[in-house]
Amino acid sequence: MKYIYLTILCIYSSVAWGQNSNGLDNLMPWPKQMTVGEEKFRLDEGFDLGVVGYQSERIQRAATRYIDRMTDRTGLFISQDLITAADTSSVAQLQIQVERSGAVALGEDESYELKINTSRISLTANTDIGAVRGLQTLFQLISVDEEGYYLPAVMIEDAPRFEWRGLMIDASRHFQPVDVIKRNLDGMEAVKLNVLHFHLCDDHGYRIESAAFPRLNEVSSDGQFYTVAELKDIIAYAADRGIRVMPEIDVPGHASALLKAYPEYGSKDTVYHLSRNAGVFDPTLNPIQEETYAFLDELFAEVTGIFPDQYFHIGGDENEGKHWDENVEIQAFMKERGLKNNHELQSYFSNRVYQILDGHGKYMMGWDEIHTEDLPKETVVHSWRGRGQGLTDTTTLFSAAREGYKTVLSNGYYIDLMYHAEDYYAVDPYFGYELEGAMKENILGGEATMWSELVTPLTIDTRIWPRMAALAERYWSPSEVKDTRSMYSRMDKVSLLLEHYGIEHIRNHEMILRNLANSRNIEPVRTIVNVLEPMKGYTRNAGGYMYSVFSPYTKLADATLADAVDAVRLRYLLEDYQQGSMSSHLLEDMFRTWVDNDELIQSMVKTSPILDQAVSHSANLKVIAIDAMQALEYIESGKKAPKKWYKECIMHLEEAKQNQSGRVELQVIEPIQALVEMARGEYSN
Amino acid sequence: MKYIYLTILCIYSSVAWGQNSNGLDNLMPWPKQMTVGEEKFRLDEGFDLGVVGYQSERIQRAATRYIDRMTDRTGLFISQDLITAADTSSVAQLQIQVERSGAVALGEDESYELKINTSRISLTANTDIGAVRGLQTLFQLISVDEEGYYLPAVMIEDAPRFEWRGLMIDASRHFQPVDVIKRNLDGMEAVKLNVLHFHLCDDHGYRIESAAFPRLNEVSSDGQFYTVAELKDIIAYAADRGIRVMPEIDVPGHASALLKAYPEYGSKDTVYHLSRNAGVFDPTLNPIQEETYAFLDELFAEVTGIFPDQYFHIGGDENEGKHWDENVEIQAFMKERGLKNNHELQSYFSNRVYQILDGHGKYMMGWDEIHTEDLPKETVVHSWRGRGQGLTDTTTLFSAAREGYKTVLSNGYYIDLMYHAEDYYAVDPYFGYELEGAMKENILGGEATMWSELVTPLTIDTRIWPRMAALAERYWSPSEVKDTRSMYSRMDKVSLLLEHYGIEHIRNHEMILRNLANSRNIEPVRTIVNVLEPMKGYTRNAGGYMYSVFSPYTKLADATLADAVDAVRLRYLLEDYQQGSMSSHLLEDMFRTWVDNDELIQSMVKTSPILDQAVSHSANLKVIAIDAMQALEYIESGKKAPKKWYKECIMHLEEAKQNQSGRVELQVIEPIQALVEMARGEYSN
Repeated sequence: MKYIYLTILCIYSSVAWGQNSNGLDNLMPWPKQMTVGEEKFRLDEGFDLGVVGYQSERIQRAATRYIDRMTDRTGLFISQDLITAADTSSVAQLQIQVERSGAVALGEDESYELKINTSRISLTANTDIGAVRGLQTLFQLISVDEEGYYLPAVMIEDAPRFEWRGLMIDASRHFQPVDVIKRNLDGMEAVKLNVLHFHLCDDHGYRIESAAFPRLNEVSSDGQFYTVAELKDIIAYAADRGIRVMPEIDVPGHASALLKAYPEYGSKDTVYHLSRNAGVFDPTLNPIQEETYAFLDELFAEVTGIFPDQYFHIGGDENEGKHWDENVEIQAFMKERGLKNNHELQSYFSNRVYQILDGHGKYMMGWDEIHTEDLPKETVVHSWRGRGQGLTDTTTLFSAAREGYKTVLSNGYYIDLMYHAEDYYAVDPYFGYELEGAMKENILGGEATMWSELVTPLTIDTRIWPRMAALAERYWSPSEVKDTRSMYSRMDKVSLLLEHYGIEHIRNHEMILRNLANSRNIEPVRTIVNVLEPMKGYTRNAGGYMYSVFSPYTKLADATLADAVDAVRLRYLLEDYQQGSMSSHLLEDMFRTWVDNDELIQSMVKTSPILDQAVSHSANLKVIAIDAMQALEYIESGKKAPKKWYKECIMHLEEAKQNQSGRVELQVIEPIQALVEMARGEYSN
Repeated sequence: MKYIYLTILCIYSSVAWGQNSNGLDNLMPWPKQMTVGEEKFRLDEGFDLGVVGYQSERIQRAATRYIDRMTDRTGLFISQDLITAADTSSVAQLQIQVERSGAVALGEDESYELKINTSRISLTANTDIGAVRGLQTLFQLISVDEEGYYLPAVMIEDAPRFEWRGLMIDASRHFQPVDVIKRNLDGMEAVKLNVLHFHLCDDHGYRIESAAFPRLNEVSSDGQFYTVAELKDIIAYAADRGIRVMPEIDVPGHASALLKAYPEYGSKDTVYHLSRNAGVFDPTLNPIQEETYAFLDELFAEVTGIFPDQYFHIGGDENEGKHWDENVEIQAFMKERGLKNNHELQSYFSNRVYQILDGHGKYMMGWDEIHTEDLPKETVVHSWRGRGQGLTDTTTLFSAAREGYKTVLSNGYYIDLMYHAEDYYAVDPYFGYELEGAMKENILGGEATMWSELVTPLTIDTRIWPRMAALAERYWSPSEVKDTRSMYSRMDKVSLLLEHYGIEHIRNHEMILRNLANSRNIEPVRTIVNVLEPMKGYTRNAGGYMYSVFSPYTKLADATLADAVDAVRLRYLLEDYQQGSMSSHLLEDMFRTWVDNDELIQSMVKTSPILDQAVSHSANLKVIAIDAMQALEYIESGKKAPKKWYKECIMHLEEAKQNQSGRVELQVIEPIQALVEMARGEYSN
């Protein structure tokens, strides 16, 4: 080829985000190896594709989806439609060639190669799952110039860094209907994830149709569960996208739903209820009764009959053993067997459950509390505890890996806690260590967890996406791909592309803004929401009792996102300003918008009482935006700001920071404080 | 009660639409009888409800949905959540009392009474279905003042004018997944509709799982069909909302899907294909073979086993009989039996099918072509032909009713043709006549049809809603409720409320705008889209071959709505201006926005080629908006406009009108022409 290839690692465009012009700016996860040429493949109505070599329905359907999304995005009317076994043209523009069907199983080859020149696109892969991965890259690469749509000339060799790249969805605390799950599987396809960990049983409900134990549906589901047919449909839908679906039945704790239906397997003689709030609850299976294991054997037989995946998650977390302590028979059993504490009793329980699952041909996986001394080595330890639980972040992961267990990291990936995307993005499954050999091999990958105490079908997309794309990059791309600004820039662009996969993160977000505004005119609400974030960690839902399953999740906190759009923007604008690469005008405009917006909010709340939680934040924002404008003036004029003004500013910022109305926090304190400090002369201008 | 009741019929608020402050402005369909007081029932966190008297799961679930939607809308945290048989408090604020369970069947009592005073809400109904209707009124009535949310004191006695209030969804031409159907059922609940006519078999695909005839799924569905379990789920979901689901299997024409799978029942020895375009196609069942009727008997047995509704729609439309004419055996059969033409042969066919359905205990319904001389009187004739087919609008409806057939009107309610809401709204099932006796009784009601040649799951909500609310009012409310301006005003408000029922008409519309903009900044695209409408009737898809099933439906025409928002707004602004009740400023602002927008569009298309269809419309809009501003100036100054200027304006308007780029039409020609005429002095100022 005549043109020069450039090797690039990671790029970002200007802070004026939002336009998807150059496909290279959209890539996420970033490929393992890529060279880029200057030429362009023109996308036009003559586009066609041929599947040459091995044929599979998976690749035909994936190619059909590619055509659907590509034409929806570009508006091109092309002649090909449903790809079938007849579409094998070797002179078609896009050639897809695979060697064999991929197994939807851990460790399958997902690599692919993509070559684009001016006249031909070649996608080759060992498995059809690899080709599915490559088609997503091909969609992201769609670019625009004044002549129309094109694909940049590239040579990509891509393969995942980790074989376990998961998203856990909790359908117990808030049930998530089939269409929510399916569209999230589409989103997972978009960013090359390969495991849906389906949390289906917890204190709030049992979500699987059960013929063996009908009371699980009758009294422990509030009428909300997946039928077997629906689950099989979901599993097939996922398999088509090369995504495994692993079920979780959480035992012996988190057992309120199991025990409300079948209290005879509980450790306490009591009436059980479904939990309606957040927290760790006491209901626990009785580990000393044979009947309990017979029950689990039959239940797991039913569930493993639905889910073909090799792995089965038994939870095992957060069993505080209160009901065990209270039960004299359990205490006697422990004494008799020489079990010194609840930890050892749980170990006994886990080993029994291991045998049951082994009998059903499944590998057991559990949260890291199951990692006890005599845990069978074939078990996968799911690391979730770290700093937040008084350990170091590597403790549970590394100790499991060191002892020869396979392990998956979720500590640091709890996206329900609404930390910034960059916080999750910074967590590497190797934690920056140069691991080798078995230690390295045993760390299978990572999994983000979407616990659903505070999310509903309306808000779940806004909580998972687009952040999940950044995490998918962490699990797929080389560890060197870690520039935060590039991540935010590309994530913002991928966010728009995800709409073509059916993800409703933008759509549903804006619906909530309309409800807050009680009007279609949402700009004033958007302006304030774009600088707010829900309180993080476990602070929003203080004590677990501020919200229940049935609370409305359409208020200010639910309208805010984990990465306040304008807080991120301000941060990078300020970075550019401080480095002298940008004038003060964009900053001034932003601050003026915030000042002017307050009057609109004060007026709007009169016809929309649900908005009242935003009023004090809006007033605070106005005050500190005025300070920020003044700070800019001082800096631009070269005069040092008066001390009295500075002190007032700090007071304003402190007041704004303390405000938790609506369980949200104002997110522009830090950058404005930096400006104020600059004006005071602490920074050089 | 101390306060004075006002009897009102129909109201509208200012042209500055969009805010839902006064619940009375949201009511649609308008109730049969209503008096309004000045007092207010305050909605707050103390809200509770009790179901007293007859208990049913339907009313419990409907009450739960009411609480969900009410709290989602207002953000109120109330203590009640899932309503169960235990929620029978007779001191609760909202008392729901019904006498019995309603049958999901034609003619069931759907009436209800609603009384609201400052401390108590009383909803009473004969059937639980009546109470479901009343709860929707109660949701619409939610009002706002500076103190918070309230319900106005009202006394409402409400009941439907027609017993058949339907929406037909065509899932054959473009398949519509289960979640699309369910959310549309929720929307139907919102506006008190009671029949989903489910068009499940046509030339483009057979959409029902079939054990008896598996090839219907294997080769005649492109993999897209409803499983029996899904259909039963849909039917139960509808029944919960008091909505019947009537299936349609279209025979003997529209039979490509049936005959692709089972060509032996066709009238021609040929290879059949699924249709990919729009039009009337030739494949037709063979009416002279006993095997055909045996096939239909078994097929209908399977379908009637799924759908409990008393009615079964056999289509029967648009059989042009070409394959009958070509078949010598059929010609011989006709001669032998003395059947003079295809009309009589179809009559023979219909009577055979009638016998089959009678055997399955179903009433037959069919499009009006089945109305032949010896059609059994128990058949329902579905009137769809009128002016467009060379008849008068009343022909097929009135002749059927006169002859003693029950009949339902769809002529005039083809919402897929994208005429204005007011056009459909103006069509009354009695066509303005004072009907009496059997003639009146035989007209059961009306049904809107959403044929799906040009709609996808992404766009179907934008085509059905909010217009369906206006049609629902036509079918429910007294015929005197017909003020167009009030309809547009209330429809605009109900549109926002429909978001709480899961309708995605606003959400998906804006997603398409983002794709057209290739950016989150959609305002320039919104501005031009808000004055455009897709070409109407059958003109957009000229010849039926411009679009196929697989074309992208994300372009300019798909982004436009049937009632261009700003065209409606301009019309009423101009009305107020001409009546002297408004100054020229709002008009000027609107015109200036259009002028300034053109530069934004010209710039935006450079990074979004899919937007190019809007460019010429934007340029035209700028030109005529400049003319409109000039016209305003002449009018305001009292000077008569020069003839030369006037002629140029007319030329500009004509050019703008001729432009069909993107299969859309600019919709502000008429009002601007009126302004230009005013300036010329034809109208008095």
